[in-house]
Amino acid sequence: MSEQRIVRPTPISGFPEWLPQIRSVEQRWLDHIRAGFERYGFASVETPSVEALDVLMAKGETSQEVYTLHRLQADAGDDSDARLGLHFDLTVPFARYVAQHFNELVFPFKRYQVQRVWRGERPQEGRFREFTQCDIDVINVDQVPLHFDAELPRIVHEVLSGLDIPAWTLNINNRKVLQGCYEGLGIGDPLAVIRAVDKLHKIGADGVRAILVEQVGLSDEQAGVCLDLSGIRGSDTSVLDQVAKLGVRSELLSEGLDELGFVLDSLSDLPAGSVVADLSIARGLDYYTGTVYEATFDDDPGYGSICAGGRYENLAGQFIRRSLPGVGISIGLTRIFAKLVAEGRIDAGRLCPTDVLVAVPGDARRADALRTAALLRERGFNTEVYHQAAKIGKQIQYASRKGIPFVWFPPFEDGGPHEVKDLATGEQTEADPASWTRA
Amino acid sequence: MSEQRIVRPTPISGFPEWLPQIRSVEQRWLDHIRAGFERYGFASVETPSVEALDVLMAKGETSQEVYTLHRLQADAGDDSDARLGLHFDLTVPFARYVAQHFNELVFPFKRYQVQRVWRGERPQEGRFREFTQCDIDVINVDQVPLHFDAELPRIVHEVLSGLDIPAWTLNINNRKVLQGCYEGLGIGDPLAVIRAVDKLHKIGADGVRAILVEQVGLSDEQAGVCLDLSGIRGSDTSVLDQVAKLGVRSELLSEGLDELGFVLDSLSDLPAGSVVADLSIARGLDYYTGTVYEATFDDDPGYGSICAGGRYENLAGQFIRRSLPGVGISIGLTRIFAKLVAEGRIDAGRLCPTDVLVAVPGDARRADALRTAALLRERGFNTEVYHQAAKIGKQIQYASRKGIPFVWFPPFEDGGPHEVKDLATGEQTEADPASWTRA
Repeated sequence: MSEQRIVRPTPISGFPEWLPQIRSVEQRWLDHIRAGFERYGFASVETPSVEALDVLMAKGETSQEVYTLHRLQADAGDDSDARLGLHFDLTVPFARYVAQHFNELVFPFKRYQVQRVWRGERPQEGRFREFTQCDIDVINVDQVPLHFDAELPRIVHEVLSGLDIPAWTLNINNRKVLQGCYEGLGIGDPLAVIRAVDKLHKIGADGVRAILVEQVGLSDEQAGVCLDLSGIRGSDTSVLDQVAKLGVRSELLSEGLDELGFVLDSLSDLPAGSVVADLSIARGLDYYTGTVYEATFDDDPGYGSICAGGRYENLAGQFIRRSLPGVGISIGLTRIFAKLVAEGRIDAGRLCPTDVLVAVPGDARRADALRTAALLRERGFNTEVYHQAAKIGKQIQYASRKGIPFVWFPPFEDGGPHEVKDLATGEQTEADPASWTRA
Repeated sequence: MSEQRIVRPTPISGFPEWLPQIRSVEQRWLDHIRAGFERYGFASVETPSVEALDVLMAKGETSQEVYTLHRLQADAGDDSDARLGLHFDLTVPFARYVAQHFNELVFPFKRYQVQRVWRGERPQEGRFREFTQCDIDVINVDQVPLHFDAELPRIVHEVLSGLDIPAWTLNINNRKVLQGCYEGLGIGDPLAVIRAVDKLHKIGADGVRAILVEQVGLSDEQAGVCLDLSGIRGSDTSVLDQVAKLGVRSELLSEGLDELGFVLDSLSDLPAGSVVADLSIARGLDYYTGTVYEATFDDDPGYGSICAGGRYENLAGQFIRRSLPGVGISIGLTRIFAKLVAEGRIDAGRLCPTDVLVAVPGDARRADALRTAALLRERGFNTEVYHQAAKIGKQIQYASRKGIPFVWFPPFEDGGPHEVKDLATGEQTEADPASWTRA
C-alpha cells in the first residue's frame, strides 16, 4: 500500500468547494432562499444537468460557454452522447421544461429552481465554471400580469435581506423606455444603442458616445439624449418626470414609463434606496422586452450583478408554437457566497449538526447510552454516542473540537442520575433525557 | 416569431425529470433523509461535480462509465478541460476531499453527501445516466471503531422506514468471513472466489460451481463448502453456529465472525427480518475489507441494490500517505424513487407549496390584499395574491386547480370582515389574518 503511487489532489480552478463549517452556512442560506420562494407560492422544479445541444443552442448565443459530455471510452461510432451539453443557466432548461410538459402544468406557472450550472470558461481567477443559481420565474399563456414584475423584486428583497450580506441595490429599468426613447429620436436600430449603452459602466460615457456616433451612426444630438437618458436614476416615480423633460415622445416610451411607474409604485413600501430605477440598465440579452433587473453590491458594483432578470415576451417560442411570456429573476448564490468567503466575511458555521454527545463511561454502559441517545433524538436533538470506551476527558475534548454544545452522561450505575454538561459555561447538572431542554 | 424553427423537446434517456407534484415528494424525501443523517451528527459536504481524471481513475476500475467534459468551442491547443470528468459516485470525491483537507478536518469525520452522480452508460431502459445518491461515511485516522459498522445500518433503517416504500431487507456480511473461510480451505486466490460468488444471484449455484472448479481450480469439495457458506442466511447470531458447522478454521474467519456477530447483536432491537446476515453478499468492489451491506426490495430483489456499502481499510490511500480507514453506506435515492414513480406507487404531492390564496375583488382592494398576504406570510403561511382583478369564481378555480387549500377574502370595504374559504369542505367563515389558524 505504501508503495502505491500518490495522486496528490489539488483544487480545480473555477469549481468551488467548502469545508464543513462553511458548507453549513451555505446550506442555511439555501434553506432560507427556498423557504422565501415557497412563502410566495413558487413550486420547486429541477431539470437534468444536461440538455440536448440543439436545445441549448436554440438561441445561438452562448455557444462557447457550453460543456459537452463524452464517454471516456465510447465505442467507435457511438455518438449517442455527443449531442448533450451541461446547462449554462436555468432559464433555457425551464423554457424547454414548460414546452415539453405544457399540457400537464397549471398556468400561470410559478416555479423556483435551485441548481448548479456550468460554463466552459477558461480557467481564471474569480471565474466560476460550476456555480449555483436560484431562479424564480412566472410563465403564462399569452399574457403575464404586470403585478409579477413587482412581486419578484419584493421576493428577492425579502430573501436577501434575511442573509448577512453587504449592502446591495436592486436596479430596475424597462426596455420599452429605452427602445421607445430611441425610436422617438428616429433611430433605426435601437438594439444597437441598447448594446452600446449596456457598456456604460465598463467604458464610460465618452466611450459609449463614440460607439453611438461612429459605429451606430447617430447624430451628436441623438447620442446626447441617449446618454442623458442613461444618466437618469432615482428611487421613486420622479424619474418619470426626468425622462419627460428629455422631450422625446413615442407610444412605446409612454407604455414603458407606465410599466416602470407601476413597478416603482408597487415597491414604494420597501426601505428607501433598496430598489432604484436606473435607466442605464439594459441587460445585454436580446430576449428581454420589458422590465429588467440587475442587483450589485454598493461597495463593489464592478464585481458585476449578483441578481439579474427581466420580462421576456416568448422565451419558449423555440420549443412550442404557443405564446408563453414570462418574467423571472435569478440570484447568483455562488457569486455572492464565494466572494464573501474569499474576503473572510462569512462567519464559520458549525462543524457538525450534533446538539448532544452522549458519553460512554465503559462498554458495559453502552446499551444505556444508546437508549439515552435514541430518546434524545426522538425529542428532536441531533445526538451522537461516543464511538468507543475512552477516558471522559477525551470524550469531552472530542465534543469541544467538533463544537458540540452539550455532553450527556448516562448513569454510572442503574438507577443513578443522568447529568449534562454545557460546554459553553462548563456547568454540569442533573437532567432527565425525557424532559431536558436547552437552557 | 411563428416562422421560427421549432426544436421539439424530448426526454433524454437516463436523465429523469419530474412534474412539480412528483418533485415535491422527492423534495420531502430529501429533507427527510437529510434530517435523519443530521440526527446522528453527520455533517453535510458537497464536492464539485467534476474531478480530475487521474483522481477518478486512481482505482482504475470504472473507466468506461466516466463522462469527460469538453468546451464546445475550445481554442485549438487548449486542453485545460480535457482532464476533467463528472464523478460517478460520491466515495471517490469524498476520499479526495478528506485527503485534500486532511489538516482542516476533525476526526473521526462523519459526513453525509447528497448529490447527483453521472455514469456514461449506453442509453437503455432503466439505466440512469444521472441520479442522486445519499451517502454517509465515517472516516478516521488509523482505526475506525466497529460501533460505526452497526450505527450505519441503524441510520439507514430509521431513514428508509420513514418513507413510504415497499418492504426491503438490509443484508449484511463480512468480507473477512468469506476470505477467512476460503483461506481455511487452502484456497490460494480468495478474491477470485469472492468475484464468482458475487454472481450467485445472477447465474445460480451450478453456474458458480462451474466457475469455481473450472476457472478458479477448486476441488469439488472446496467448491461445495464455498457454496454451503454462501447459502447461510439468518437474522440473528445463529448464523455464526451454522458457519462453525462447516468445520473450517482460520484466524481471519474467527475475526470476521466476531465482527459480524457484534454488528448483528448491536442491531438485534430492530424489527425482526429488517437486517439479515446473508453470507452470499460479497460486493464486487475490491476495496471492501470487512462489513459489507446491500439492501434490496423483497418483492423485486432482481432490481438490484437500493443501498450498498461497507468497510474499507484505506480508501484515501491513493491521495495521501496516511492510513484512513472508513465505513460507509449509500442510499440509491433515484433508483428507489424512479422505480416507484414508474410503477405508479408514488402518491402525487402538492402542485405548489401555497397554503392560502388571497383573492383580489378589484384593483382598488389590491393594496389591502397585499397587506393581508404579508401578515399571513409573517405568520408562517405560504401565501399568494391572485395576480389580477378577476371574477371571484375564476380565482377560486385557480386555487382549486393548483391544490391550494384556502382562499382568503379581504374585506370588500374598509372595516368589513375578512373571510376564508376551505376548499376541501366548501365552508366559508369570518377570520382574522392576525390570529387565524388552519382547522
